[in-house]
Amino acid sequence: MNGAQSLIRTLVDSGLDVCFTNPGTSEMHFVAALDSVPQMRPVLCLFEGVASGAADGYGRMADRPACTLLHLGPGLTNALANVHNARKARVPMLNVVGDHAVDHKQYDAPLTSDVEGLAAPLSHFLRTTKRSANLAADAAEAALAARTPPGQIATLVLPADVSWGEAGGPAAPLPIPARTKVDEARVEAAASALRSGEKAVILMNGQALRAEGLKLGSRVANASGARLMCDTFTGRLERGAGRAVIERLPYFGEMVAGELAGVRHLVLVGSQEPVSFFAYPGKPSYLVPEGCSVHRLAEPGDDMVDALARLADALKAPADGATIQQLAPPAPPTGALDAKAVGLAIAAHMPEGAIVADEGNTEGFLTPIFSAGAPPHDWLSNTGGSIGLGLPMATGAAVACPDRKVIALEGDGSAMYTVQALWTQARENLNVVNVILANRSYRILNIELERVGAEGAGPRARSMFDLGNPQLDFVTMARSMGVPANRATDAEGFSKAFARAVAEPGPSLIEAVLVG
Amino acid sequence: MNGAQSLIRTLVDSGLDVCFTNPGTSEMHFVAALDSVPQMRPVLCLFEGVASGAADGYGRMADRPACTLLHLGPGLTNALANVHNARKARVPMLNVVGDHAVDHKQYDAPLTSDVEGLAAPLSHFLRTTKRSANLAADAAEAALAARTPPGQIATLVLPADVSWGEAGGPAAPLPIPARTKVDEARVEAAASALRSGEKAVILMNGQALRAEGLKLGSRVANASGARLMCDTFTGRLERGAGRAVIERLPYFGEMVAGELAGVRHLVLVGSQEPVSFFAYPGKPSYLVPEGCSVHRLAEPGDDMVDALARLADALKAPADGATIQQLAPPAPPTGALDAKAVGLAIAAHMPEGAIVADEGNTEGFLTPIFSAGAPPHDWLSNTGGSIGLGLPMATGAAVACPDRKVIALEGDGSAMYTVQALWTQARENLNVVNVILANRSYRILNIELERVGAEGAGPRARSMFDLGNPQLDFVTMARSMGVPANRATDAEGFSKAFARAVAEPGPSLIEAVLVG
Repeated sequence: MNGAQSLIRTLVDSGLDVCFTNPGTSEMHFVAALDSVPQMRPVLCLFEGVASGAADGYGRMADRPACTLLHLGPGLTNALANVHNARKARVPMLNVVGDHAVDHKQYDAPLTSDVEGLAAPLSHFLRTTKRSANLAADAAEAALAARTPPGQIATLVLPADVSWGEAGGPAAPLPIPARTKVDEARVEAAASALRSGEKAVILMNGQALRAEGLKLGSRVANASGARLMCDTFTGRLERGAGRAVIERLPYFGEMVAGELAGVRHLVLVGSQEPVSFFAYPGKPSYLVPEGCSVHRLAEPGDDMVDALARLADALKAPADGATIQQLAPPAPPTGALDAKAVGLAIAAHMPEGAIVADEGNTEGFLTPIFSAGAPPHDWLSNTGGSIGLGLPMATGAAVACPDRKVIALEGDGSAMYTVQALWTQARENLNVVNVILANRSYRILNIELERVGAEGAGPRARSMFDLGNPQLDFVTMARSMGVPANRATDAEGFSKAFARAVAEPGPSLIEAVLVG
Repeated sequence: MNGAQSLIRTLVDSGLDVCFTNPGTSEMHFVAALDSVPQMRPVLCLFEGVASGAADGYGRMADRPACTLLHLGPGLTNALANVHNARKARVPMLNVVGDHAVDHKQYDAPLTSDVEGLAAPLSHFLRTTKRSANLAADAAEAALAARTPPGQIATLVLPADVSWGEAGGPAAPLPIPARTKVDEARVEAAASALRSGEKAVILMNGQALRAEGLKLGSRVANASGARLMCDTFTGRLERGAGRAVIERLPYFGEMVAGELAGVRHLVLVGSQEPVSFFAYPGKPSYLVPEGCSVHRLAEPGDDMVDALARLADALKAPADGATIQQLAPPAPPTGALDAKAVGLAIAAHMPEGAIVADEGNTEGFLTPIFSAGAPPHDWLSNTGGSIGLGLPMATGAAVACPDRKVIALEGDGSAMYTVQALWTQARENLNVVNVILANRSYRILNIELERVGAEGAGPRARSMFDLGNPQLDFVTMARSMGVPANRATDAEGFSKAFARAVAEPGPSLIEAVLVG
């Protein structure tokens, strides 16, 4: 058994059986070993940012890591933008980065670079295996690191000769630590704050946003009169009919400040103190109001469900005290196609168990509002602000959940960073409906240009946000990669196209041409 | 004047007047300032890897740096793969990376990352400006670093508040150091080796591959009986009719070893000792034969033209002793469309002053051979092995040289990494003929799988190199981004389409469907 075979077997035994790949020569033994370990499913991507974004979507939905297979420093750097998003969402991920053979690195061949230096800033675990005999044990440790709650980025640098050298058998999987139970003092502090009768917000993220945590959070909020909220961007939010209701913090800092005005107690459950996404001249970054006490009930790696259950008990919250969302999808829209019509149409036709990969930005922000009463579904958002996540994340979520329908809600500008994901969707025949919100611009930047108070901006500045010259034709682009596609220009047309797309298996794309 | 204005004015004064951009909120003041400094030309790219690859192509042809404008850590990492290539080609480049405002970084907002840590491994110069008043001076230093021979990667991290804060005027440009004259000892050592009568190779790269250096190298080689060669991958090679002839080192290590067998003296002119591109089991990495002395005439930053001229004098090489390529384009090909036919057609119709951006890989390797006798042209190759350079590099070269025709020679697999470059070509109406060599596979990896001796590879491994399921349709893909396109399936058809394309202004694409 060579190193690559011992690696892949160890990964499979450790619960990693999907690999999003874009291999090169230094990864050939890994690729060859795929035939001898059929339990590992390789998914070919045409660009490494697709691979890492897909691993993110997979990790969010499977609750265990996928691995990526990347080609030296440049393959790694191409993946890093979506690794950044996964890191911020605390998604488990294991990146295997092929490198030159150990003795070859000294010669400064063209593809030589400082792979560890490039990986370090975004990796929780980073190791270069120097001997084939160590590879299986290192892989088990990397898998453990990735799976350690709440989920981490593990990077294993794999010199080519370590892949091809003779190794022993695979390593046994290492036990994954459970989430930490929080100290009773944390529960008591939160309970005391919530009993005060003063204005309070419970802000949740991570594990607390699954069905069980939400129900507990809602019971706590209702028993104490606090408001239950989640962060603007969350890794995975279980919502829709039958789930407990939670409000979302808005995006812009001044709107967050408005929501939090007068709040005296902020109870954090897997979240952090709210700050503005960007800084703006003369506006505050830190958004916790003065005089507000912050109580950290649970950190991201803690057992939030247990902590919330104990808090509910402390507050004697009734077992049936959660506010449960009723099934109430809106009627399909008519008229012009705008952000509202898109949101109504998606909400009207969203099937039960849908997964929304949301990178809709300015044109997508109404869709979660209208879909609150849709059948139960999962909402995955862009947690790190690195653009180009949506289509890859949808791809990975569809690999993780082949029996569910994935909806990629995607801005036209954002789509172009990693549009190669469409080909992988076609190749794997994944159940993804890609909705491209085509406003022909980086619209958010037109808004931001005003907000930052940049003086002297004129037509040259504005032209930097204009995607209409030439116009991108997403219908032919999707078809060029094997994905059936259609264009919608009014609400009825979009609504019909979307209803048809979610009813059919396999990938599809709808270019929603929005009114200006 | 705010920081951004002082920055852009300083850059323009320092000789940087093109900026390949993909901006976000933290770069809004830079974008706004573009209207007040019309000397800076912004070129919008839909993905940061296009911006950095275009800056590479621009730098190679303009002999001065372009700048890029990138959005925080993720924007930087998206650019790094092509920064790696530029670094290996020793191309001047200045990356301006917007970051959060200085005081905002502490709050760990979603887009926060260790920008300096990510930039460091690939930057020769790296600085974060913390005060608006320092920005102009830092920009002048960064420009100097980029322009210091032979060309360097400079990275300037620009917090948003440093952009928007009040600054003084622009900083004066700093004097750029000249290339270093080499010690006489180096010239004498090379002369002595070449006078020995023993088998010798002169291996050149960098500045020595422009017309003047080539002619001197050829005179030296002819006067001494040495063989004149260049590296396999070179930043910019001036070749074709009227230029001195130079041979190219082959790609595979065993072929290099064959070429160098028996060589007793290797004279390096801006090059380094040959090593194999990748390591292979049981094969050597270091390819200088035993018993061969290595003589370093000139380092990459040295004045190679001066060194070669002194060497020519030392050897009393006749002034007219260079071997000059005659104009001898081949006849256009007929029959099946394969790598040979592509090479013959391009060579037959290549216009004078053409610039070839070569990422043709397995299907492109015959084109430089057949085009040796084409009219004078420049050849830009992938110097770092990071795939996804070709289309962006062609884009940047066309910005630098609007009156010349750029030919992107591009593999289908390689094209998909940064295919968004086509949109920028259309938007800027650039004179680029994109030739996509469509063999529907990562063919090089099928070759490499054999070469690395990976055992047990079967259909799953092979499927990782298959781009045919579904087939990529580059004609509709190009049109979807505003670039006119056609498909060719035989030699005559390709030849005609190529001749027509080079005769017309603006961008175009030809999908060359190659026989299997």
